[in-house]
Amino acid sequence: MRKKVAVIMGSDSDLETMKSCIARLKSFDIPVEVRVISAHRTPAAAEQFASAAKENGFGAIIAAAGKAAHLAGVLAAYTTLPVIGVPIKTSLMGGLDSLLSMVQMPKGIPVACVAVDGADNAAILSAQMLALSDSDLADRLTRFKSDMAQEVAQKDQKMQREEF
Amino acid sequence: MRKKVAVIMGSDSDLETMKSCIARLKSFDIPVEVRVISAHRTPAAAEQFASAAKENGFGAIIAAAGKAAHLAGVLAAYTTLPVIGVPIKTSLMGGLDSLLSMVQMPKGIPVACVAVDGADNAAILSAQMLALSDSDLADRLTRFKSDMAQEVAQKDQKMQREEF
Amino acid sequence: MRKKVAVIMGSDSDLETMKSCIARLKSFDIPVEVRVISAHRTPAAAEQFASAAKENGFGAIIAAAGKAAHLAGVLAAYTTLPVIGVPIKTSLMGGLDSLLSMVQMPKGIPVACVAVDGADNAAILSAQMLALSDSDLADRLTRFKSDMAQEVAQKDQKMQREEF
Amino acid sequence: MRKKVAVIMGSDSDLETMKSCIARLKSFDIPVEVRVISAHRTPAAAEQFASAAKENGFGAIIAAAGKAAHLAGVLAAYTTLPVIGVPIKTSLMGGLDSLLSMVQMPKGIPVACVAVDGADNAAILSAQMLALSDSDLADRLTRFKSDMAQEVAQKDQKMQREEF
Amino acid sequence: MRKKVAVIMGSDSDLETMKSCIARLKSFDIPVEVRVISAHRTPAAAEQFASAAKENGFGAIIAAAGKAAHLAGVLAAYTTLPVIGVPIKTSLMGGLDSLLSMVQMPKGIPVACVAVDGADNAAILSAQMLALSDSDLADRLTRFKSDMAQEVAQKDQKMQREEF
Amino acid sequence: MRKKVAVIMGSDSDLETMKSCIARLKSFDIPVEVRVISAHRTPAAAEQFASAAKENGFGAIIAAAGKAAHLAGVLAAYTTLPVIGVPIKTSLMGGLDSLLSMVQMPKGIPVACVAVDGADNAAILSAQMLALSDSDLADRLTRFKSDMAQEVAQKDQKMQREEF
Amino acid sequence: MRKKVAVIMGSDSDLETMKSCIARLKSFDIPVEVRVISAHRTPAAAEQFASAAKENGFGAIIAAAGKAAHLAGVLAAYTTLPVIGVPIKTSLMGGLDSLLSMVQMPKGIPVACVAVDGADNAAILSAQMLALSDSDLADRLTRFKSDMAQEVAQKDQKMQREEF
Amino acid sequence: MRKKVAVIMGSDSDLETMKSCIARLKSFDIPVEVRVISAHRTPAAAEQFASAAKENGFGAIIAAAGKAAHLAGVLAAYTTLPVIGVPIKTSLMGGLDSLLSMVQMPKGIPVACVAVDGADNAAILSAQMLALSDSDLADRLTRFKSDMAQEVAQKDQKMQREEF
Repeated sequence: MRKKVAVIMGSDSDLETMKSCIARLKSFDIPVEVRVISAHRTPAAAEQFASAAKENGFGAIIAAAGKAAHLAGVLAAYTTLPVIGVPIKTSLMGGLDSLLSMVQMPKGIPVACVAVDGADNAAILSAQMLALSDSDLADRLTRFKSDMAQEVAQKDQKMQREEF
Repeated sequence: MRKKVAVIMGSDSDLETMKSCIARLKSFDIPVEVRVISAHRTPAAAEQFASAAKENGFGAIIAAAGKAAHLAGVLAAYTTLPVIGVPIKTSLMGGLDSLLSMVQMPKGIPVACVAVDGADNAAILSAQMLALSDSDLADRLTRFKSDMAQEVAQKDQKMQREEF
Repeated sequence: MRKKVAVIMGSDSDLETMKSCIARLKSFDIPVEVRVISAHRTPAAAEQFASAAKENGFGAIIAAAGKAAHLAGVLAAYTTLPVIGVPIKTSLMGGLDSLLSMVQMPKGIPVACVAVDGADNAAILSAQMLALSDSDLADRLTRFKSDMAQEVAQKDQKMQREEF
Repeated sequence: MRKKVAVIMGSDSDLETMKSCIARLKSFDIPVEVRVISAHRTPAAAEQFASAAKENGFGAIIAAAGKAAHLAGVLAAYTTLPVIGVPIKTSLMGGLDSLLSMVQMPKGIPVACVAVDGADNAAILSAQMLALSDSDLADRLTRFKSDMAQEVAQKDQKMQREEF
Repeated sequence: MRKKVAVIMGSDSDLETMKSCIARLKSFDIPVEVRVISAHRTPAAAEQFASAAKENGFGAIIAAAGKAAHLAGVLAAYTTLPVIGVPIKTSLMGGLDSLLSMVQMPKGIPVACVAVDGADNAAILSAQMLALSDSDLADRLTRFKSDMAQEVAQKDQKMQREEF
Repeated sequence: MRKKVAVIMGSDSDLETMKSCIARLKSFDIPVEVRVISAHRTPAAAEQFASAAKENGFGAIIAAAGKAAHLAGVLAAYTTLPVIGVPIKTSLMGGLDSLLSMVQMPKGIPVACVAVDGADNAAILSAQMLALSDSDLADRLTRFKSDMAQEVAQKDQKMQREEF
Repeated sequence: MRKKVAVIMGSDSDLETMKSCIARLKSFDIPVEVRVISAHRTPAAAEQFASAAKENGFGAIIAAAGKAAHLAGVLAAYTTLPVIGVPIKTSLMGGLDSLLSMVQMPKGIPVACVAVDGADNAAILSAQMLALSDSDLADRLTRFKSDMAQEVAQKDQKMQREEF
Repeated sequence: MRKKVAVIMGSDSDLETMKSCIARLKSFDIPVEVRVISAHRTPAAAEQFASAAKENGFGAIIAAAGKAAHLAGVLAAYTTLPVIGVPIKTSLMGGLDSLLSMVQMPKGIPVACVAVDGADNAAILSAQMLALSDSDLADRLTRFKSDMAQEVAQKDQKMQREEF
């Protein structure tokens, strides 16, 4: 049976950004669990979730947070599962603050960071991880990649026919 | 009896920077407890310390950390004592990464940030807090401030006598 | 009797941002005094207010300012009360300029900085300071913290019931 | 048989930084292949390596590069294996330029970024990925994590015995 | 016969920005070929185009891309024609991320960067290159420059007549 | 007779920002000359204006420009009059690019920079310079300063009467 | 009699940087007064000096400070003399923090900023201001400018004779 | 006969950085003229050189400057030859200030920017421009590119033989 991926947000206001992540996971038939857990307001829930994630059938945790953005790091502290961080865009520095808070982790506790608001890529990255031991998922990723290429190729052909 | 101040470092390599903090606290006769607790490597110790800090006689917690620098925020998650953050200088952005990770806390869980490597000021700030209900400490702070002014005034007089 | 907290703005245009600070203080039954004082346009008022703040019954000063944002530092120069700085968001660098102007104080004169536009957290931080010698306020902070946790937990439960 | 991890550098001058990555992988008994491939000077080698990496027994690719730092992205373009990027520190902006070049990937082609010069964490992250279907490796990661915690705890105990 | 200039976008969403580039090239009667090629999604197309660009009659390649913005560098890897990079404005850092990804190329593979969203100037720069061996184009550039000067001079005269 | 102040814009699109500068100068009865001169498109006009500015009765030159923002520096190259730079806000970095281009002048050729979009302050600064030998203007500046203080004091009184 | 220029440092550690400023002023035979005044530690001295500067024969005030760097602004608050700010280089952001603290002054209270560590240019700028009503100084500035040009021209000639 | 390339520095202190540029041009047998011209101290020389560069047999101008770094833009103002800018590294922001001053040129006057201290690449870029009508140079560039690839390939082979 396919491992689950958790999508955890520091605030339910991040849902809008993370919808494309959830949708992408579902498009790969990866079971998803979506949670709102705050590193600072419900730290016990963070500990509880992360500590038990592996035995609860999760293969990867995607954590989205903005500003101080400690969520991904706090989860990573309690698990050896790969944790993927999605820095949420902020008005202070466009999300650079979130990115630096997430990616500059100390030695021993990595967080795998994707782009600011890179929700879709977080899903794909988690799929790539699960696909290491899931050949059906690996095939889906290969098709997904070639579909993308075709889509760009079509836009290229359309552009070449354009009159300027 | 005077409340204690905790000085917590994310790594023992921060001790060099924090020595002036410890010395300043001791110069005010504030009892100090110095700890190495990692938000990511010993999260249980962080939780334990912060949860019990108030009943253990602490009046403020000073947390020093660099880069992702989640320590202050993680401690603040488990206590209602004021938590003072000292962002440690880094080679990536001179400590701007540490500062942003510390100061951009979500609504509800403040961290009181001082300057990058501002160890001494963290001590003074904690003393100002304790002094709200400790008149001896308040007097010491007043003397400290006037001593500083005098020191600058003497440098000014020396400068005015200088030949250029 | 509970100590007062001053909320001082460099410009009355900062009021919109600071309203949540004033409201939070009032929700804790902390007496508030709201002022408009400019570090550069009415420096005498700044000096006068800060010099007398302690004997006038204040326990903390919250100062909000943007850009060069000297207000918090100027007030801190004239008092030994803890001064909390709220850097106001700007269009140049999203408030990073305000933050750096406020937080990078010289040795001896700390300012306790919160996040850019972190008005609410400034109020909570001042409450944490007063609570060191005010057990009723300490209890309110504990309840406030557990209410917050519950609120997030409810959002989490709602999210788990959501269909994606 | 355990999958291999590739450690690819854009320049052999990155070896010093990446040695801790290679050592960490070897400490987990993960077979490593170390290469020097330049996204810009030997793009054909990059394409060739990445295209065949999966069928050649690799489970993850770690790519280290500085400045424009396209290496990780170029490799990710040719494979569905997870690609981990290590932004190398630079003198322009301390590696912030490398980090942004690596992490801000377009939708569809993720790169999993770790901290600037985060070579060790890149190794651990790749181990976490392989461990999803390799229980011996999973056990090693659990031991590694608890060893780290113990090491910090010992430093904490030593610090508490220190005289200041 | 005049050499062609290629205008290559990483995404068709960049067309709006690049229209002024295409229009400027056409105003100089430089033959243009407009393409959508993604460094990451259609890397083979990038290789193919750049490898053959010189023998296909191109004199310069203009590449526009945002964020990780590898397109210009990837094209430069496969040709000795001058490659001009147009960093596209982003919401993270206003295009600073795109600029750094484009301009910080390693020794041996230059990219000629213009300003963020500097589509028009990219066209002029390519014309300046072609004009080195195309005296008609050189004359057009001289006229263009003196027309610009005249236009500013007229605005200056109008401004001097303005009542304030 | 009072010396004139020149207000020079790199583009007539800067007029909106500079109107408060022109108005402030006129409020002090300082004769103003407003020009559009481009450092790059009409460099000869820049040279001509700056070289003759002193003998043409100017006492200071205010130059407003954005992005590469060379205008102030180019004018300063041709005169010993004080040149005041107004960095115009940009979308790349909020005007930080303009500011750095203006203020980081080489030894020997200063430009006196004010804040991004600081048009009004540029006028006041030029008035302060002229006032060194113009006692009527000095009196006006003193009145202006005390009017400002009174205005803030009134806002402060109004704020203190406010109900929250 | 020539007006005096004040050179005020926030800390005597800034003297090394400011020596070239003092020397340049003396080379123009401008009387200099050098002071150490801290905006935060001796605010009364700052007020006193600035308030009386004009009647004490000063024509301009040069203020050097680093980090929060409020000194120039605080002095400007108490005088209508032109105040020139020299942002001192820092280890956090190379002095960008000092620059932003100094230059982003609110409407009504300008500070004339020069480059980070631009001590020499601050002196020249103050000389340009005094020269508006001091023809001997104006002549010296003209000679200084032409000497500089000659010096560069000689280096240019030397460079042209160089063998590469 | 091959066109000349000018290498112009804003200060002779930039020579150390630009030596690799001069050497690279000579390695391609491109005639070089090396000059020291300051945009601000010898603006007339800048104007004179750039205005006459085309008829004096130059095909491209390489301009190196730091900080405000106006040199490339000032030269571009007076010629229609392609101008290549080399932003020189600074201590303020590692050369980011130089880069932004150079690259953010207004519409109509492009500067082709290379990396900070990218002296070698500036030479190669100018060669690529001249090569558009110089087949011998084009061949040299092709050989140079394949030599580079071979060099990296050898380092790769050496790395693969290394024991870790």
